[in-house]
Amino acid sequence: MSTLTLQYDEIAAVIDPGKVIEAIQDIYGQFYRGAVQMPFPYHFEPTDDSVVHIKSAVRSGDQYVVKIASYFPGNPSKGLTSILGLVMLFDGNTGEPAMVLFDNALLTHHRTAAAGAVGARLLARQDSTSALVVGVGTQGTLQIDYLLRVRDIKTVTAYARKPEAVASYLAQQSKKHPGVDFRAATGLGEACREADIIVTTTPNREPLLMAGWIEPGTHVTAVGSDNPGKQELDPALLKKSLYVTDSTPQCAKNGELQHAIAAGVLTEADVHAEIGAIVVGDKPGRTDPESITVFDSTGLGAQDLAIVNLVYDSCRKE
Amino acid sequence: MSTLTLQYDEIAAVIDPGKVIEAIQDIYGQFYRGAVQMPFPYHFEPTDDSVVHIKSAVRSGDQYVVKIASYFPGNPSKGLTSILGLVMLFDGNTGEPAMVLFDNALLTHHRTAAAGAVGARLLARQDSTSALVVGVGTQGTLQIDYLLRVRDIKTVTAYARKPEAVASYLAQQSKKHPGVDFRAATGLGEACREADIIVTTTPNREPLLMAGWIEPGTHVTAVGSDNPGKQELDPALLKKSLYVTDSTPQCAKNGELQHAIAAGVLTEADVHAEIGAIVVGDKPGRTDPESITVFDSTGLGAQDLAIVNLVYDSCRKE
Repeated sequence: MSTLTLQYDEIAAVIDPGKVIEAIQDIYGQFYRGAVQMPFPYHFEPTDDSVVHIKSAVRSGDQYVVKIASYFPGNPSKGLTSILGLVMLFDGNTGEPAMVLFDNALLTHHRTAAAGAVGARLLARQDSTSALVVGVGTQGTLQIDYLLRVRDIKTVTAYARKPEAVASYLAQQSKKHPGVDFRAATGLGEACREADIIVTTTPNREPLLMAGWIEPGTHVTAVGSDNPGKQELDPALLKKSLYVTDSTPQCAKNGELQHAIAAGVLTEADVHAEIGAIVVGDKPGRTDPESITVFDSTGLGAQDLAIVNLVYDSCRKE
Repeated sequence: MSTLTLQYDEIAAVIDPGKVIEAIQDIYGQFYRGAVQMPFPYHFEPTDDSVVHIKSAVRSGDQYVVKIASYFPGNPSKGLTSILGLVMLFDGNTGEPAMVLFDNALLTHHRTAAAGAVGARLLARQDSTSALVVGVGTQGTLQIDYLLRVRDIKTVTAYARKPEAVASYLAQQSKKHPGVDFRAATGLGEACREADIIVTTTPNREPLLMAGWIEPGTHVTAVGSDNPGKQELDPALLKKSLYVTDSTPQCAKNGELQHAIAAGVLTEADVHAEIGAIVVGDKPGRTDPESITVFDSTGLGAQDLAIVNLVYDSCRKE
């Protein structure tokens, strides 16, 4: 057996965002139905300020993936990105390594952006035309790139702490999407009130979006919180929304739900649905144009399995 | 950064058993001194009868390794070995993947055989001339190949359940080591009484070596037990020996010590030493030619780090 080894540029060349969205939506349904297992993740700290995460996902009798992702905050001073890593795909009936992808988190970035698009497709109003993105890094860019594929967005407002980062984001995105009006937010509360769809992509550890700022009919996707302690949303916002998780137990541990539970504002029973239940039709998505919807995306190993498969299939065809 | 990718044959070509023995002895000392951390291992079952183990070892501020090893018992019927897998070496200060080794457990086999040689070097009598190997698979072969490097062995007796497997082993090993007399055991008890050094390499789950069979002055290395439930030695043998572990907590969970503890025969306090303590001189090895010594090798992630480094260094030089 020969193992396919792919470098970053080769992976980037075969990623098709339209297909990634469909694959992520489909895997949410498979995960909900129990077809994909995610063994408990594992991490260790090679130095005082770094962490290595090992995650895996198994589709029984078919395939499994193992992802090793490291975060070394000192890397940028050495000319490297802080997140590095690789993903491996194995034959689930023999253990043969089918593919090793030196993607340095590229696939994680894309499967996370696709999650936002699936959330918007299933929960945001069909007539949404304005978006607010909070955080203008890689995720802030990709979330909008993917969102534009599922809703007819005319205006995107960007908010971040550093004005120069916002300026650079606006220049880059305006060039990439000439039909969309990109502008800087003047204040976060005002920007929230004006947006049909809000996407938060920050590593915050305190609420950034206050419940009072969110108007009826708004959809919010929060992708920043993926670990204990992280938080972007006011628990009161979850309380007044149709609140949807990618995995309720995982959100209760790593997502926005952890803080709402700690504050005594919500319990797991108050979650409207896991997104997979909406995908397969067991639960409704948005039914009322006046609802506020929230999608809490903590990131599933199942998503890694889905996007790696997409790369594998496209490389096998070539 | 470019990641070095090595296939099985390339890895086999650079393994130097003499250097592996020194590297394993050295890493035992480093592990004992706390320089190598081994995060708790992780496993999952892709199918009803298979298992995937993920192990790692970290030398803080230097390097870390992650090993993925799968066991699919149905593989031989498909023309594949049941154990497959790969090992990855990372820069411990940046997370950059330095090397991916598609070794299909070759490095595990060698670092385990080297562990046996280190045990014999530190614990067996200098004048040992006869060895008994129990189990004639890959480990039964490599354990003797490595043992011959540290003791002047004239006679090797082989014991296994299947006579045809023993015959094939004797033919192959006689050819490889023409100066050594390889012969089949007639009975296990008798073979034990005649051997200066005994190495057990089976996946047994019941004691195979009885305490009464082991004469004063004998050294025993047991490498088969590496999981809860596995067992090769009578707990009474541990009781009457100078009993040495690779890692006492790990042996209490996965090694021969688990059964001695369960039987109320020993506690962790009765362990003479971890092998690393003997390497660094904190504890003596054998001091009395009449002692029975036992080395319980369950296998440490630290050993993977040591042997992967050896391959890395030899490939960088080329």
